[in-house]
Amino acid sequence: MNQKNLELSTQAISQYNSLINNLLSHRKLPDVGWDDNVIEWFINEISMMDSNNFIENIGVGEREGRLYSQIVARRHFGLAHGIGRSGDINEQQPKAAGSSLIQKLTNYLVLDALRIAGLEKSIDACLVLPMATGMTIALTLMTMRQTKPKATYVLWPRIDQKSCLKSIVTASLTPIVIENQLIDDVITTNLQTIEETIKSLGAENILCVMSTTSCFAPRIPDNELCKKYDVGHVINNAYGLQCTKITHQISQSVRLGRVDYVVQSTDKNFMVPVGGAIVASPLAENIDRLAKNYPGRASGAPILDLFITLLSMGRAGYRRLLDERKQLLPYFIDEMSKVVKEVGVGRILNTQANTISFGIAIDSNDVSKSVLAKDNISMIGSKLFMRSCSGARVIDVQSGQKKSVGNIDFKNYGSHIDNYPTSYLTVACAIGITKEDIDLFSKRLKKVLMNK
Amino acid sequence: MNQKNLELSTQAISQYNSLINNLLSHRKLPDVGWDDNVIEWFINEISMMDSNNFIENIGVGEREGRLYSQIVARRHFGLAHGIGRSGDINEQQPKAAGSSLIQKLTNYLVLDALRIAGLEKSIDACLVLPMATGMTIALTLMTMRQTKPKATYVLWPRIDQKSCLKSIVTASLTPIVIENQLIDDVITTNLQTIEETIKSLGAENILCVMSTTSCFAPRIPDNELCKKYDVGHVINNAYGLQCTKITHQISQSVRLGRVDYVVQSTDKNFMVPVGGAIVASPLAENIDRLAKNYPGRASGAPILDLFITLLSMGRAGYRRLLDERKQLLPYFIDEMSKVVKEVGVGRILNTQANTISFGIAIDSNDVSKSVLAKDNISMIGSKLFMRSCSGARVIDVQSGQKKSVGNIDFKNYGSHIDNYPTSYLTVACAIGITKEDIDLFSKRLKKVLMNK
Amino acid sequence: MNQKNLELSTQAISQYNSLINNLLSHRKLPDVGWDDNVIEWFINEISMMDSNNFIENIGVGEREGRLYSQIVARRHFGLAHGIGRSGDINEQQPKAAGSSLIQKLTNYLVLDALRIAGLEKSIDACLVLPMATGMTIALTLMTMRQTKPKATYVLWPRIDQKSCLKSIVTASLTPIVIENQLIDDVITTNLQTIEETIKSLGAENILCVMSTTSCFAPRIPDNELCKKYDVGHVINNAYGLQCTKITHQISQSVRLGRVDYVVQSTDKNFMVPVGGAIVASPLAENIDRLAKNYPGRASGAPILDLFITLLSMGRAGYRRLLDERKQLLPYFIDEMSKVVKEVGVGRILNTQANTISFGIAIDSNDVSKSVLAKDNISMIGSKLFMRSCSGARVIDVQSGQKKSVGNIDFKNYGSHIDNYPTSYLTVACAIGITKEDIDLFSKRLKKVLMNK
Amino acid sequence: MNQKNLELSTQAISQYNSLINNLLSHRKLPDVGWDDNVIEWFINEISMMDSNNFIENIGVGEREGRLYSQIVARRHFGLAHGIGRSGDINEQQPKAAGSSLIQKLTNYLVLDALRIAGLEKSIDACLVLPMATGMTIALTLMTMRQTKPKATYVLWPRIDQKSCLKSIVTASLTPIVIENQLIDDVITTNLQTIEETIKSLGAENILCVMSTTSCFAPRIPDNELCKKYDVGHVINNAYGLQCTKITHQISQSVRLGRVDYVVQSTDKNFMVPVGGAIVASPLAENIDRLAKNYPGRASGAPILDLFITLLSMGRAGYRRLLDERKQLLPYFIDEMSKVVKEVGVGRILNTQANTISFGIAIDSNDVSKSVLAKDNISMIGSKLFMRSCSGARVIDVQSGQKKSVGNIDFKNYGSHIDNYPTSYLTVACAIGITKEDIDLFSKRLKKVLMNK
Repeated sequence: MNQKNLELSTQAISQYNSLINNLLSHRKLPDVGWDDNVIEWFINEISMMDSNNFIENIGVGEREGRLYSQIVARRHFGLAHGIGRSGDINEQQPKAAGSSLIQKLTNYLVLDALRIAGLEKSIDACLVLPMATGMTIALTLMTMRQTKPKATYVLWPRIDQKSCLKSIVTASLTPIVIENQLIDDVITTNLQTIEETIKSLGAENILCVMSTTSCFAPRIPDNELCKKYDVGHVINNAYGLQCTKITHQISQSVRLGRVDYVVQSTDKNFMVPVGGAIVASPLAENIDRLAKNYPGRASGAPILDLFITLLSMGRAGYRRLLDERKQLLPYFIDEMSKVVKEVGVGRILNTQANTISFGIAIDSNDVSKSVLAKDNISMIGSKLFMRSCSGARVIDVQSGQKKSVGNIDFKNYGSHIDNYPTSYLTVACAIGITKEDIDLFSKRLKKVLMNK
Repeated sequence: MNQKNLELSTQAISQYNSLINNLLSHRKLPDVGWDDNVIEWFINEISMMDSNNFIENIGVGEREGRLYSQIVARRHFGLAHGIGRSGDINEQQPKAAGSSLIQKLTNYLVLDALRIAGLEKSIDACLVLPMATGMTIALTLMTMRQTKPKATYVLWPRIDQKSCLKSIVTASLTPIVIENQLIDDVITTNLQTIEETIKSLGAENILCVMSTTSCFAPRIPDNELCKKYDVGHVINNAYGLQCTKITHQISQSVRLGRVDYVVQSTDKNFMVPVGGAIVASPLAENIDRLAKNYPGRASGAPILDLFITLLSMGRAGYRRLLDERKQLLPYFIDEMSKVVKEVGVGRILNTQANTISFGIAIDSNDVSKSVLAKDNISMIGSKLFMRSCSGARVIDVQSGQKKSVGNIDFKNYGSHIDNYPTSYLTVACAIGITKEDIDLFSKRLKKVLMNK
Repeated sequence: MNQKNLELSTQAISQYNSLINNLLSHRKLPDVGWDDNVIEWFINEISMMDSNNFIENIGVGEREGRLYSQIVARRHFGLAHGIGRSGDINEQQPKAAGSSLIQKLTNYLVLDALRIAGLEKSIDACLVLPMATGMTIALTLMTMRQTKPKATYVLWPRIDQKSCLKSIVTASLTPIVIENQLIDDVITTNLQTIEETIKSLGAENILCVMSTTSCFAPRIPDNELCKKYDVGHVINNAYGLQCTKITHQISQSVRLGRVDYVVQSTDKNFMVPVGGAIVASPLAENIDRLAKNYPGRASGAPILDLFITLLSMGRAGYRRLLDERKQLLPYFIDEMSKVVKEVGVGRILNTQANTISFGIAIDSNDVSKSVLAKDNISMIGSKLFMRSCSGARVIDVQSGQKKSVGNIDFKNYGSHIDNYPTSYLTVACAIGITKEDIDLFSKRLKKVLMNK
Repeated sequence: MNQKNLELSTQAISQYNSLINNLLSHRKLPDVGWDDNVIEWFINEISMMDSNNFIENIGVGEREGRLYSQIVARRHFGLAHGIGRSGDINEQQPKAAGSSLIQKLTNYLVLDALRIAGLEKSIDACLVLPMATGMTIALTLMTMRQTKPKATYVLWPRIDQKSCLKSIVTASLTPIVIENQLIDDVITTNLQTIEETIKSLGAENILCVMSTTSCFAPRIPDNELCKKYDVGHVINNAYGLQCTKITHQISQSVRLGRVDYVVQSTDKNFMVPVGGAIVASPLAENIDRLAKNYPGRASGAPILDLFITLLSMGRAGYRRLLDERKQLLPYFIDEMSKVVKEVGVGRILNTQANTISFGIAIDSNDVSKSVLAKDNISMIGSKLFMRSCSGARVIDVQSGQKKSVGNIDFKNYGSHIDNYPTSYLTVACAIGITKEDIDLFSKRLKKVLMNK
């Protein structure tokens, strides 16, 4: 190469290096998302730091990161050692400096993203685990139990989502269901029952209250009771990061009450494949204890997915996604109102505290006056699915069916309460949805409701 | 296209389809491994069956498999929904018929591989979990506890590998360390102590014995005690699938004694990235119970890695890997003997039951008569690592250091016993190692031992 | 799989198949561009039709499409046989039904794209060649010569771009330079000189006129002279597809005059890597003759790039790109006017017929009154390049330098005419440019002009 | 990262850098082929040097390497600018320092490979062109004509492969067919006719002799005539690099006679996709003239394929391929002899000078005494193809068919001579063939010959 071209190349590489240095020194989302090729260069460069990728490496241990398939090697950028060491999932692996760096950076980027999402200073540290929310909550509970071994109860305001309940049972703990209360269309947590239960079981026997933020039937998360009675508090914030109302409520809980851990799904909040969860805490030592309690190594794949995605979004991209979702919610409700009106079936449930999902009541009157036969209510969901609409759920309360989950019987499982006054259909305005999605869904729902 | 070309294309597609049909109907490893492009075609085809990849799909739920980054989408072949449903990790997801199919097929292929590896008919069912062995053992213990809730002890013949012990502690159980006994160079399990401990603690209070097969210090896995006293038996078979001696021993244990679960690492046995474990059991209902106890969904990535790898190996490829490893072990020992002789330092430990790892004793006499200064013993490992040799471990028993793991104190941690008579270096002849690796390692070790 | 999931999968596959069938039956750009994964599925499916990808294939010829490197195999989707047969570049290869299908479809898609771009019915057929415009024009000229072997002159209205001229020389033909004329800022073709030259050399000795549409100094393409004198007419329309004014002018030339071939670059018009050209003609037999004159096979890579890109754009995406470019041109000119005004250097050249590039005159007065030293005029381009702005060109007419290309001497080479009254800088508003590009360029240009 | 890990990473990167530096300084094939990931890292790093990949790049020209499709960008590693400048295909592009570097390195690596293949010091320079052999030969002829414009004849010892002949015609030259002579089974060049033709047409009117090395019917390439009469000599060495007998013969021709250009296919010799050719010459200035005669830019894809493949092979890998091919030839002949004997049909043609392909004579006697009906002779090829055997060709001389190629009539086209005494089937033992291929082919051929 001649001198001039050499200068140009040097310049090009320095532009790239300045991006990298910025990331390594600030440990925050880049202002603007990186291009895919820049992300791939960076990961490839990091990957060279893992011993299995050393050109002259020889492995004489039992776990040397050998990869048989080139497809597999490629899809993981040659990263084979996973994350963590046997003593601490957060510890740096000597054999895998690159994998460890990605894990460390991802935790930093996620912390930054949590703050952008509204958790702000309430959160001191976080940890991305390569397990989905259910198993992560189980591990969180088991970690809490290490310091309060006699406490075997978890107070659990009812939420009809199986894995929450199962995570308690899996952790060999006993869930105490706190039934919700109904005010008009809205289901809320019965704080009075919680307090009575704490008193009757004894705070020393209660490991924690597990509240849930993000769900069609949200309840105000416990604010002061846990602090007052010194029982733990785990917030299942599965997909709540996408809504600033929820994150601000959590921040308030931290300030006024007690919060030990807040657990969120990576896939539901950051558009990555299922398989990761983010545990955040107001106390860094809580996170430290969790990391140390994890036995052994773990898959690095969900962490890498998040790393790539956050670099790709950048601060601007993530903000735009959050804003778009927020702006599309009233549009979605409007469009559904129009459908409901036009078809003459149902009404939008009045649950203003729900900022992600909302419900469309479809009661028996609707059915009798419409083309929908009664037995079709529960068919709406599957009819929609057959028209390539996924995610709409029908809650048929008229059947009054009982269901047993984790050896506990529930009436009208799915509606979060025994006696919701009407059957309904829920839809969600979740991160990544587009106006086009909503428009197409409206058309297809109308056809289904008109039995066309 | 004209008629003739149409015929040819049809023929090409039918060759491909016949591979696929063979797999779907026999559910076993293909005799000969598939080419990478065939594997990729197949996964792409399966991926189309997941709703997020439906061309006309609209998602109005909270979890719709939207992927933000094209890098991420591509590396997962568009598979976003992970595996499992909230009720059962093994259950088919309606939204993700493709992902579910891969999971199902992988379990079948792994079962076939277990049989090729020598577990034969002793194993009735297996399950691949997207967690490494430590966390998987924790889940296994918690599952066993569901049916024996009062039993909180786990008898644990000492093995100095942190995550085993931690998996017991994480599961809120109490490990009872069974110290090993020494016969010449060999460390073995003290069956008598186990029996005495069962008697003294009461079988009803003991959840299980956890034995370990694959380790430099292997012990005969419990054969008849667990059956005799009706306590559970979990075998930590981390990397033992690669050795038929070990798998035959397990089969014998199943026949003569009691085995509840056998847990093995996917990365150590099948050359995939860290992040998965295979749980096998002589009773399908044990596996079923485990699957149902897992709370929520999970990452599909480690399953896909295994799926790809097994299709790529085929029966012939897997057998060849097993055979090569077996044949390289005596060669490796020979080469090490030569090095030891030539350098005049150390001797090969006589532990014929160890069929994967072996040790090179380096005692103080060696050191005094050699160029190695005393303080250099523990440096050998790091010196090797600086020469791009990873995995060799130095056990320095002369220091007599204590270490606390899971609140239990151990003397000479790493040597599996309090008073091993000599310091030593371990190396492993693990699956995927090549003759060239051994030759290069011999050269580099010699240089290190000669302090060059 | 159960019945319901089977239905869903079938449905998913049928959505995919309907896209494919639509393409195969209509042979036009899809209305909406396809997602990347759909494109990759399709190419993978097609690739299976090539004999080297037949699972049971054995090759015993000299050219069997064996690929050594998996990287290479993957980047070509396993397509190894290139395009064409020795007799005809457009002929279907028996060994490579898939590659042949892609080539055929690409020609159809390109024809559709040409019509969207404004060539409409004037064009009867087209051919994508895996050679850039220069070599493609050479082949086109050689093909024309087959039917008029004695004609060795090509009349060539001067355009200062080397490869045009070289393509005539390479084809062993003699270029006759037709000097342009100047009207105010505008350079145009001197039709009178063309006519005189035809008469003086004799039409029977002239193979063709080669006119150029797309260039900072465009000229009205020959309209009626070629028809009148029965000489051929090749239009070098290198990057002219992106501008409807140019395509309409070509259509008019076809209607009123004679056009044998119109040649355009794939990279400049469709945002693919350099390496392909599209030859279009009002007469399908011209294209047929060209295809038959190409000796042997050729690379399929540039065709595949175009195929992927056109499927990815779809009709909507291509239209949007064309519209955006059109709308950004006045914005670009405005921004440059502002810069010029602010800096007090130069003026925008008044060349309204130029709809892609435009010029900024920078004469000596500008220089003397500005911070720019005289010798800096020609430095502007390289200064811009050092600030990561590529593509701006400085034409320094004051130097009056002579340059010899293809053994012909030119004065002020680069300015398309001997005596352009001012030096200038050209920039282009080409397909794919963004508003952000223009804004950033304005900033950087300002800095350069102010010598900061 | 802590200090120790930093050291390790530095070490890893220095291992990588030492590979790269070795390549850049020696410009020869690496002794051992590089791993795929190392190759990809290197190309990605180079790719950063092209201006379209500068992170802060803004393009305001007409050709800025913008890529619309991410699939396309990825498959070309972001390299968009192709190779060459309008003045010289070998010239470095200022906008594309990376692409230019790859081109330069590839030419060096190819030169090294040519020497390994046996061309040794006879060759002074070479050039890889992104056009297959046919078009490359046409360009070569046109280049030769620049310095001898009046010479329009090309003496062409008959070889029945269309694109050779067409490349002469495409270049607007007149082929003079030199009929071959037959000695037993062997077809050879008639040197006497060549000499007579040179004398009768006049050496000054003859551009060159075009001889062909690699073909079932090889002839001794002209040795001294071209030198004696001062006419050019182009050797079409399409797939001859894979055979040292051929390369040594060429070296001898260079020493004793005159050789202007030797042209070889990249796909046939180096297992890359169709689309490139290597032109080598004993005189560097010949290569220079060719490079300068190429008009404009060109696709970089075939060059990149070769670059990747040569790095992947390394010297050892390439040698191994050459050796394996050589060793398999006698095996292949033996196996075919056995088939022929067993079936009782045909005999192996005695053409020991053919070291790549060989023929199996199948005359009418064979047919009458076998199960093959006469009309089946020509069906053998297509029957084999229907059994997934490609590349075997049947030459049916009994039909005596005439065929016109490039306006010249040939009798028994395909057999390279008018009156070959027998019909036959040719197969090739080409680079990349495996023993398994030969075994499977033997089985299938037997079935076809036995009409099963």
